[in-house]
Amino acid sequence: MITLSSDFGSPYPAAMKGVIAKRTDARLLDVAHDLPRQDVGVGAFWLREVLPYVPPAVHLAVVDPGVGTDRGAVVVRAGEHAVVAPDNGLALPAARRIADEVEPFRLDYEGGAGDWLADPASSTFHGRDVFAPAAARVHEAGVDAVGTIPGITPATEVVDLRLPEPELTDDGAVGEALAVDDFGNVITNVPGAVLEGQFQEWAEANGVRASVRRTYAAVAEGHRLITVGSHGNVELAVNRGRGDEAFGIDTGDRVSLRWP
Amino acid sequence: MITLSSDFGSPYPAAMKGVIAKRTDARLLDVAHDLPRQDVGVGAFWLREVLPYVPPAVHLAVVDPGVGTDRGAVVVRAGEHAVVAPDNGLALPAARRIADEVEPFRLDYEGGAGDWLADPASSTFHGRDVFAPAAARVHEAGVDAVGTIPGITPATEVVDLRLPEPELTDDGAVGEALAVDDFGNVITNVPGAVLEGQFQEWAEANGVRASVRRTYAAVAEGHRLITVGSHGNVELAVNRGRGDEAFGIDTGDRVSLRWP
Amino acid sequence: MITLSSDFGSPYPAAMKGVIAKRTDARLLDVAHDLPRQDVGVGAFWLREVLPYVPPAVHLAVVDPGVGTDRGAVVVRAGEHAVVAPDNGLALPAARRIADEVEPFRLDYEGGAGDWLADPASSTFHGRDVFAPAAARVHEAGVDAVGTIPGITPATEVVDLRLPEPELTDDGAVGEALAVDDFGNVITNVPGAVLEGQFQEWAEANGVRASVRRTYAAVAEGHRLITVGSHGNVELAVNRGRGDEAFGIDTGDRVSLRWP
Repeated sequence: MITLSSDFGSPYPAAMKGVIAKRTDARLLDVAHDLPRQDVGVGAFWLREVLPYVPPAVHLAVVDPGVGTDRGAVVVRAGEHAVVAPDNGLALPAARRIADEVEPFRLDYEGGAGDWLADPASSTFHGRDVFAPAAARVHEAGVDAVGTIPGITPATEVVDLRLPEPELTDDGAVGEALAVDDFGNVITNVPGAVLEGQFQEWAEANGVRASVRRTYAAVAEGHRLITVGSHGNVELAVNRGRGDEAFGIDTGDRVSLRWP
Repeated sequence: MITLSSDFGSPYPAAMKGVIAKRTDARLLDVAHDLPRQDVGVGAFWLREVLPYVPPAVHLAVVDPGVGTDRGAVVVRAGEHAVVAPDNGLALPAARRIADEVEPFRLDYEGGAGDWLADPASSTFHGRDVFAPAAARVHEAGVDAVGTIPGITPATEVVDLRLPEPELTDDGAVGEALAVDDFGNVITNVPGAVLEGQFQEWAEANGVRASVRRTYAAVAEGHRLITVGSHGNVELAVNRGRGDEAFGIDTGDRVSLRWP
Repeated sequence: MITLSSDFGSPYPAAMKGVIAKRTDARLLDVAHDLPRQDVGVGAFWLREVLPYVPPAVHLAVVDPGVGTDRGAVVVRAGEHAVVAPDNGLALPAARRIADEVEPFRLDYEGGAGDWLADPASSTFHGRDVFAPAAARVHEAGVDAVGTIPGITPATEVVDLRLPEPELTDDGAVGEALAVDDFGNVITNVPGAVLEGQFQEWAEANGVRASVRRTYAAVAEGHRLITVGSHGNVELAVNRGRGDEAFGIDTGDRVSLRWP
């Protein structure tokens, strides 16, 4: 299986899938192609949340503001999975979630060693010309054999990316809004465990008070709640409404949680 | 084959697909993941219109404003098809369109009897943790054997949902706008047969006059028409424009049709 | 493999896929279902850019403002590929890009000769009732055998569509904006080769000056650039922004390029 994730919208992902289908019969699974444009951090967050639910696969992931510059390209092996991505940190949070040990390789797409590379490769669409053929090649060789593929060599140094960690205090936590989902739920980096014992009470997020509840429907329609989302983190939501608007919090904002 | 329908947007459906792909090699077919948010009636309408065109399959359908509450979960068998959904009526109009007799089963996702259930299951994403594993399990057992699966038992009572029926009169009909599609076409519940003999004439919808025609292009660009849509019902449209805006009618509105 | 392209949004494409899946086990690949609504020229452009990257396949393509009128329906054979589409020119630019010689056939969907046709066929959704079953039938017969299928006969005349050609001058070029992609990049019909020797210089597009660069990130964030896009044509862009807004140019506009 090969999964595909990008911020490409439509119809560019179809060109990547065509390139892959010319090289392998692997099953294809779209994770998302509407990741927030050129936002590596939010892309890394969504990959970390979704990829662990997928069977062992090669994951093609492209959020790539540096396309065509001298930024590198990597394959990160994580157990039976491999993530093929620009060397901008995008792959690492997901890889570390999948496996305790991750092993990065470098895609030598300029050196001419890779027999998998599109010829000629454009400067503006490496998803199609570099990453898609590399993902197909890794799938065909098998994740265990990634190091034997011409043009793919162990990487001594890669761009790291760690999603921000929250600080826990006696009466709350200070974290960050990692993403806002399509429902308008604000997903923080604060672990849901901090709410244990707080259900049926209230809490404040950046000074805005809301009920602490396990389910959206436990508050009246249009009312705010603070809950534990499906990713296990504290989430700011509105039953049948948008949490981001009701709390005034967007991706990347600091989130200060306080309870009585 | 397993089809997937939801109001989840992106990328949550990919987690459901991953969960399924870990359990079965079934082909996956997306019906829609942009169903109107938390609107069970419109979701039920679209499932009824699309699922009959699909080969025998297990249909995973999640529009679920009550997720995490004590609302139940069902599998509705309809001939060679089965719909796995929250017990909120979502599955029934499609199931009844597919087969004359439908047979509901209950998913015991809290009793611990289901060997298929994700452990632990979240309170906020039953699509991933309850319905997706159940759909995979039903697919693997076969629709005929659904009653033999641990944790799936015949249901004596389920939440029913019937889409509203129109009233036909001598010079028209009074119905409801069941949905507005992405083109802006207003799809009513009035059967297209009432227009027989009216083509090349005009009619009124809520007092707004328009030509009755078989095809959009039979009126000039930007002009209103009343036609029979691909679902067989009366549809209010504009050639190369939006019918909902031109007629001032939205989903759920009463639609009064009158002809000369 | 069968690819699908349309301006249908959601969930109508799922009905097409169901119709196909009832007739063949062919792999399905979505190219796009958000092609600009009823714009045959832009649809033809995107098909031309994407389909050559796909392995030999039957390509179902529906942008069809004339649905239900007496416009015809075609299968255009191009090497090992075939494009099934309304007879409005949509298929031809892609077919010509794939193969030097293209061979058009007519789908006799009204004459009753086609054993593949849905019965009854609606007047408003030929994607589901005419083109999807025809694509499945062509796939099952094989592209080489398309002429042996009942109801599919050699076409003597089809609606042609050629994308506009640019004029090259001594100090520039005059072309047209063929499309704007989801990033806001303006894709012109001017071949990228005209920029050879201009990189590290500037140029003007409709009087708006911008750097000529090979990659988006070669200019500062928010700055305009003129580059060669992944389709090989001159593209007007903004690093991490929208070129269409910064240059004031939309699909179909004349683009006058001038360099020093």
